[in-house]
Amino acid sequence: MEVKKLWIDGQWVEAKNCYSLTSPYSGEEIAKVARASVQDVERAIVGAHATFQSFKKTTSYERAEILYKVVELIRNRKEEFAKILAMEAGKPLSVGMMEIDRTIATYQFSAEAAKQSMGETVPMDAAPGTKDRIGYTKRVPIGVVSAITPFNFPFNLVAHKLGPAFAVGNTVVLKPATQTPLSALVLAEVFKEAGLPDGALQIVTGSGSELSDILVTHPLVKKVTFTGSGAVGLKLKEKVGLRKITLELGSNAAVIVEPSTPIEKVISRCVTGAFGYAGQVCISLQRVYVHESIFEQFTTAFVEETKKLKLGDPLDATTDVSAMIHPREVERIKQWIEEAKHQGAVVATGAEFTKRTMTPTVMTNVSPDMKIVCQETFAPIVSIVPYKNLEEAISYVNSSDLGLNAGIYTNVLTDAMRAADEIEAGAVVINDVPTFRVDNMPYGGVKNSGYGREGIKYAIEEMTDLKFITIKTTF
Amino acid sequence: MEVKKLWIDGQWVEAKNCYSLTSPYSGEEIAKVARASVQDVERAIVGAHATFQSFKKTTSYERAEILYKVVELIRNRKEEFAKILAMEAGKPLSVGMMEIDRTIATYQFSAEAAKQSMGETVPMDAAPGTKDRIGYTKRVPIGVVSAITPFNFPFNLVAHKLGPAFAVGNTVVLKPATQTPLSALVLAEVFKEAGLPDGALQIVTGSGSELSDILVTHPLVKKVTFTGSGAVGLKLKEKVGLRKITLELGSNAAVIVEPSTPIEKVISRCVTGAFGYAGQVCISLQRVYVHESIFEQFTTAFVEETKKLKLGDPLDATTDVSAMIHPREVERIKQWIEEAKHQGAVVATGAEFTKRTMTPTVMTNVSPDMKIVCQETFAPIVSIVPYKNLEEAISYVNSSDLGLNAGIYTNVLTDAMRAADEIEAGAVVINDVPTFRVDNMPYGGVKNSGYGREGIKYAIEEMTDLKFITIKTTF
Amino acid sequence: MEVKKLWIDGQWVEAKNCYSLTSPYSGEEIAKVARASVQDVERAIVGAHATFQSFKKTTSYERAEILYKVVELIRNRKEEFAKILAMEAGKPLSVGMMEIDRTIATYQFSAEAAKQSMGETVPMDAAPGTKDRIGYTKRVPIGVVSAITPFNFPFNLVAHKLGPAFAVGNTVVLKPATQTPLSALVLAEVFKEAGLPDGALQIVTGSGSELSDILVTHPLVKKVTFTGSGAVGLKLKEKVGLRKITLELGSNAAVIVEPSTPIEKVISRCVTGAFGYAGQVCISLQRVYVHESIFEQFTTAFVEETKKLKLGDPLDATTDVSAMIHPREVERIKQWIEEAKHQGAVVATGAEFTKRTMTPTVMTNVSPDMKIVCQETFAPIVSIVPYKNLEEAISYVNSSDLGLNAGIYTNVLTDAMRAADEIEAGAVVINDVPTFRVDNMPYGGVKNSGYGREGIKYAIEEMTDLKFITIKTTF
Amino acid sequence: MEVKKLWIDGQWVEAKNCYSLTSPYSGEEIAKVARASVQDVERAIVGAHATFQSFKKTTSYERAEILYKVVELIRNRKEEFAKILAMEAGKPLSVGMMEIDRTIATYQFSAEAAKQSMGETVPMDAAPGTKDRIGYTKRVPIGVVSAITPFNFPFNLVAHKLGPAFAVGNTVVLKPATQTPLSALVLAEVFKEAGLPDGALQIVTGSGSELSDILVTHPLVKKVTFTGSGAVGLKLKEKVGLRKITLELGSNAAVIVEPSTPIEKVISRCVTGAFGYAGQVCISLQRVYVHESIFEQFTTAFVEETKKLKLGDPLDATTDVSAMIHPREVERIKQWIEEAKHQGAVVATGAEFTKRTMTPTVMTNVSPDMKIVCQETFAPIVSIVPYKNLEEAISYVNSSDLGLNAGIYTNVLTDAMRAADEIEAGAVVINDVPTFRVDNMPYGGVKNSGYGREGIKYAIEEMTDLKFITIKTTF
Repeated sequence: MEVKKLWIDGQWVEAKNCYSLTSPYSGEEIAKVARASVQDVERAIVGAHATFQSFKKTTSYERAEILYKVVELIRNRKEEFAKILAMEAGKPLSVGMMEIDRTIATYQFSAEAAKQSMGETVPMDAAPGTKDRIGYTKRVPIGVVSAITPFNFPFNLVAHKLGPAFAVGNTVVLKPATQTPLSALVLAEVFKEAGLPDGALQIVTGSGSELSDILVTHPLVKKVTFTGSGAVGLKLKEKVGLRKITLELGSNAAVIVEPSTPIEKVISRCVTGAFGYAGQVCISLQRVYVHESIFEQFTTAFVEETKKLKLGDPLDATTDVSAMIHPREVERIKQWIEEAKHQGAVVATGAEFTKRTMTPTVMTNVSPDMKIVCQETFAPIVSIVPYKNLEEAISYVNSSDLGLNAGIYTNVLTDAMRAADEIEAGAVVINDVPTFRVDNMPYGGVKNSGYGREGIKYAIEEMTDLKFITIKTTF
Repeated sequence: MEVKKLWIDGQWVEAKNCYSLTSPYSGEEIAKVARASVQDVERAIVGAHATFQSFKKTTSYERAEILYKVVELIRNRKEEFAKILAMEAGKPLSVGMMEIDRTIATYQFSAEAAKQSMGETVPMDAAPGTKDRIGYTKRVPIGVVSAITPFNFPFNLVAHKLGPAFAVGNTVVLKPATQTPLSALVLAEVFKEAGLPDGALQIVTGSGSELSDILVTHPLVKKVTFTGSGAVGLKLKEKVGLRKITLELGSNAAVIVEPSTPIEKVISRCVTGAFGYAGQVCISLQRVYVHESIFEQFTTAFVEETKKLKLGDPLDATTDVSAMIHPREVERIKQWIEEAKHQGAVVATGAEFTKRTMTPTVMTNVSPDMKIVCQETFAPIVSIVPYKNLEEAISYVNSSDLGLNAGIYTNVLTDAMRAADEIEAGAVVINDVPTFRVDNMPYGGVKNSGYGREGIKYAIEEMTDLKFITIKTTF
Repeated sequence: MEVKKLWIDGQWVEAKNCYSLTSPYSGEEIAKVARASVQDVERAIVGAHATFQSFKKTTSYERAEILYKVVELIRNRKEEFAKILAMEAGKPLSVGMMEIDRTIATYQFSAEAAKQSMGETVPMDAAPGTKDRIGYTKRVPIGVVSAITPFNFPFNLVAHKLGPAFAVGNTVVLKPATQTPLSALVLAEVFKEAGLPDGALQIVTGSGSELSDILVTHPLVKKVTFTGSGAVGLKLKEKVGLRKITLELGSNAAVIVEPSTPIEKVISRCVTGAFGYAGQVCISLQRVYVHESIFEQFTTAFVEETKKLKLGDPLDATTDVSAMIHPREVERIKQWIEEAKHQGAVVATGAEFTKRTMTPTVMTNVSPDMKIVCQETFAPIVSIVPYKNLEEAISYVNSSDLGLNAGIYTNVLTDAMRAADEIEAGAVVINDVPTFRVDNMPYGGVKNSGYGREGIKYAIEEMTDLKFITIKTTF
Repeated sequence: MEVKKLWIDGQWVEAKNCYSLTSPYSGEEIAKVARASVQDVERAIVGAHATFQSFKKTTSYERAEILYKVVELIRNRKEEFAKILAMEAGKPLSVGMMEIDRTIATYQFSAEAAKQSMGETVPMDAAPGTKDRIGYTKRVPIGVVSAITPFNFPFNLVAHKLGPAFAVGNTVVLKPATQTPLSALVLAEVFKEAGLPDGALQIVTGSGSELSDILVTHPLVKKVTFTGSGAVGLKLKEKVGLRKITLELGSNAAVIVEPSTPIEKVISRCVTGAFGYAGQVCISLQRVYVHESIFEQFTTAFVEETKKLKLGDPLDATTDVSAMIHPREVERIKQWIEEAKHQGAVVATGAEFTKRTMTPTVMTNVSPDMKIVCQETFAPIVSIVPYKNLEEAISYVNSSDLGLNAGIYTNVLTDAMRAADEIEAGAVVINDVPTFRVDNMPYGGVKNSGYGREGIKYAIEEMTDLKFITIKTTF
């Protein structure tokens, strides 16, 4: 089997070591992948820095055209890319196709964002005693960006790093998740064909624990953008010095279901929010707070809908849920469920395991301090909890160290507005699951769910320096 | 009795003619007021233009300081100014005090707005083939502004012209309503004391029909801002040439009351919306569409609340409603009511007249083509109309040539959002009467209700030219 | 010869009458073109209004995709379209290719602009006594837009109307210039293929004087956008009522050439600015003010460069300048030159005429009140005038009733800043000719040069209503 | 001597320990000041958090009114406050008066900023497949802010923390520099009188090294804002976890003086930039790069102007430069100068020391790696260095690990634009010293000069969370 190489300075570069990449679903080896050394990464960073010197001088039009071309190229290869997702990430084909659609949108938003105004004039004469000055701001590219990305959206979460970075003229060293290198490596071709200069995108595969230090602390790295676990994110941030950093971490996303909700219209959406890609989504619906008056009805319908989900091979077009990313994750969540059951939790459906899969699981009778409630499960499991009134429901949602998206279903305007105010989250989604995200909206968490915001134009602010120019217009 | 003079170039200037100003409530003469000639206005315009040459060069800090000082001076004279409103406009003291409070807010917003950024950089390199250029916009003052203002908010609607004009460095020729010159003239002192240069504020009193031509067509006038009737506004616009113009015209504002409304909490607000300052307000509540299921209950409560209103002397602190601005307006609305009654309308309460007053009037059983419904009444009269469903209610609201503010009471989120989308108005006010306005919000109508927007920063856009500067940074 | 039909509601519709379209260069008939009646236009307006009811509900994504498709389709037909320009407008092929490039940019900017934020939240609680409210603005499409376009940029100036209109969901009745219908009509196919709904783009050809009334005054028309002569523009504005209107009128654009200018680097650009498309450009360089210390040198070089221009058939790839749009324009400018010569002006080069052409002409010894100086020439003629100092040069530039773009060449920072401040123009272009325009920059004149601004996002503001939504969040 | 207490929850609170505060100029004790314990700070944080629960619910109008009142109160006590600066900071009275003026401006900008829009609508329908949604952003207050401030602008740099924090509804625990507690403590009275709720401003005096840990790591602290040394700033950032942090660190600010500079007009400004407040300013002019053609002339004039500066008692109105903040700083800079002299540097003037003062010092013949060049001197010392051409000058400026403001004097437009592009700094100041700052401009460094931006509205962005609300408007 051919060994996948590193992509450095527009060339495929062999690494000394490699690792075996296996399919989450079948367990079979699907590729051998380069395991970059620290020296490889250093070389990538140095090359990215070299390319930055010219890339930063390109016009926004030129950069947008590259990104538009990327859009076109990905559109042409949608099915191929969805299959990569099925292979290496165990993502069902239909779900993968949606990811590719969103990836396309993300690059297109990036192309568009490149060409928007990012500066304002500063009213210098608003300061006492100040005349004859003009002042304006500009957003300048920052240099080499280290992008460390997770396995769950190997195309779209990479796009959320590459798109804004290239839009403004940064160069990127991309370290994809160990489990999902193929979807990253295929971008080497795409961007090359789209006209991106060699060295602007470096792809180094391998072990995060071995490589993150150099990615975060190399003097030529000016920005780190990371999506992944909270524990890792926090460590990166401690090491990052004065560099900019964006962290998109996890959550235990909740939704409130108020009595005014037309349950039949939302149940399918809630189930998708909970089990899409086996719950391995930062904003996967993990906690459902349902008003006690409709709790039974809601739970029954939810369980029924859950049971319809088909578990199977990700390459099968009819599969809804497939393998979890790794057997040890199955093991972990199995233990969490056992623990919860010991503490009184009830399995309403699901909780059947193989080495690599678990059935979509609905829990009831849970308590706030169970791991399946208060920690990020990242698995196809959801808890449904009754509540007495909105105040209590909001306090349940807020009793978490995490706060990315939160949802509320209600058709009562004043309650919706109250929830929007009082829920502690990066985004409050009214009348949808917290799993809702479109790629141009600001996205990012409060509390331990992250640092900074993504969503193209918001990411761009965090990937550029604000430079201020002022001119005294007379001597 | 002393004759009030014109205020030109920082001096009180006698006019050849004058007119007698009488109290709307008592009918007694309260002042003799200069009746400016066309030559007087020309002189004012020329003087304003001369002052503009230096005033445009002041800093935004300096202009803001003048406006902050105006805020302070008006704060110190609140009661005196409210009495002027009672005298010349027949505005009850308590209502007048609220107008002065809003006037203060308007000038303060203007001071603040003066100092905000009003420019952006333009991404020149987003155009193909364009490099080495910077570009930015600035808002430049436009020159002499002719401000023609109405009788109903003699302080605050003047403030909405003067505040933004001075914020950006324009100079103003103010022609206040014939009936309310005193509240304008007192500003001469206020602005003088606040440090406004002579000539930046010219005040010409007299007849609108005699003076509007020169105010709108003089070559040195660069902007016309008018609040008043639709018929006059349209004529001004036809004459204005390439000058900028803002027209704030009338409306027959409507509110929808949906079944989810807690009637007891909104009834008093609705009554105030309908009868505040005897309904002589552009966004006075004139049409109330109430769902048929609560129509009786609402109407009963509304009539009851209406009956509590005290009609009387504006100088009496307990008066809610006082005289209309002129006996001919009483006569007009009396005829409209008669006409409506002939067509089947029913007086639920009110419709008692003296020469100068009418009692707050509630009509039912009206039809859409009655004048009291489809034209602007500008009188203390409101119609209450039942409807079957929201679709019908929205179509009632929209079946008007006018569209300033519109209101809807509903606690159903999806209905509120639908109304926000479908109602044709400059502003849709959810869960309040259309009479709601704060002075920093965008304000202005669609259809025949106006042209352009006020609300300080929005007015500023219409009182300035957008100037674009681009620099090629290399040869 | 086939008669070109009207494009109404997605169909080719015959008109009762037609007119003969002849080539400006050869004088030969190139097509017979429908001459729409007032009834035809009414039908087009009514159809556009009908389509608006659904088109306004499309998403910005959908509208952007249509515009992106238009970009692609025009890219594929560049040469064909450039030939149309050569045929009907007498535009040399190389110049036409540049127009098509800019047209592509304009539609692409429109697609991008469709998807940008056009609203802001309003800080309701900044007003005294106001709590528990949210407020936000949105830009809503306005309805049917009448677009009346000129002959000089039949593709790109049409794009500046259609692009922003479709970006926001308006529908358009396009009345192209009588001389350049073909480039408009070909868009019918392009937009149809791109997926624009039938009726969203109506194209009515014929006589402006016959059709402008209905285009401007029909009750279903909500916005007029016109590029053309000042006289016509002003008349349209007088009739427009409360409708929105944008006027892009003419100018007699000037440039100042300061002694710090590296003449050899700018001379070719100046000549292009003066004679591109035979000077038939709103911002064609018409007045060159050169510091007396370099006047001789500059004029000599300018004349020399001018003489290099090749006059000829627009379809010949080597042609720089071709026929003027109509023999009567040749006649007019010939008379203006004669008149100027009688008053002392000197022809430095050019001023040779055929029925349809004139050679690129440089005049010296002109005075400010000559028609060739103070009026818009719209012909390949430029005057070069010496000046003593920057103050004088700026006063020359400003001594005009027109003020679109103005240029200044200087490498002295303080002088550049001074010119940016003091020159009265919509745009001040530092170190380039006033003829500089990219399609995303704000564009429009002061004084008699226009009303409103174009440049996609600026045009969008003038093609939408600002709607304000406010919600009281508690009862 | 009375012991100054801590200000916690609106009360003066005794600390167990205190320290002696001595005058930098006289060395005499001027106060005994509380030395807060970690427990004191914890109490302050807890109190600030408690107050935040209500303060965050105040309206922006109410918060602005408090800040406006602060403006008024400080205006009334300008001289008193300037004397405090002279006493505890050794700041000459005239310099102190300027700081108070800027402090007033900073609080006024904060009041104004509180009331501006801080949100935008998000075009949800720009994402494929997304309909019937609205989305908008808001900036929400973040909670308790730990503000750690330096000695050099005890009023204005505190204002840059308190102003934006209170503008948005945060509460603050202020730890002023050990040497300048009095100017902080006097704010307790000012804000109390202005109506700030108890607990919104907590002031804890004492040792930075003892207290910074708890200020940065307490779970209730949500934001740290620090102005001070790079070494300390970096340590704080490592400890800050996921909290937001702003660091305003030091610099070795440079200016380039090009041959086109009218030296006589800028020399006095340059001297002020170098020696204002004895150079103890983050953007104090430390490096002057002068074109070799004017090096002699410039240096001579600079030295001459420097010699005019009067060293003396800060309370003497004629004093230009007074004591350095501490004898150990005098000692340090003395050693640096000795070291530089050994390496070949020449003292052109100055370098005379007492225990507490040094005369304004001009160095020549320096090299880039001397401490007086490459490190922040924070002392009245400047180096003047000749250069050959602009490229070299820019490379000198950029050869620094620091990059706050940088200046360039040139009247050549293309050179100014080039410098604006190529100089690596937070701000490029054209035709002024880098010491230029007005309080509404964005301010902050690149490289090791800081993290984040201040300047009221920019600080506000870093003191708030961006919250996104989206509503699905139909079920």
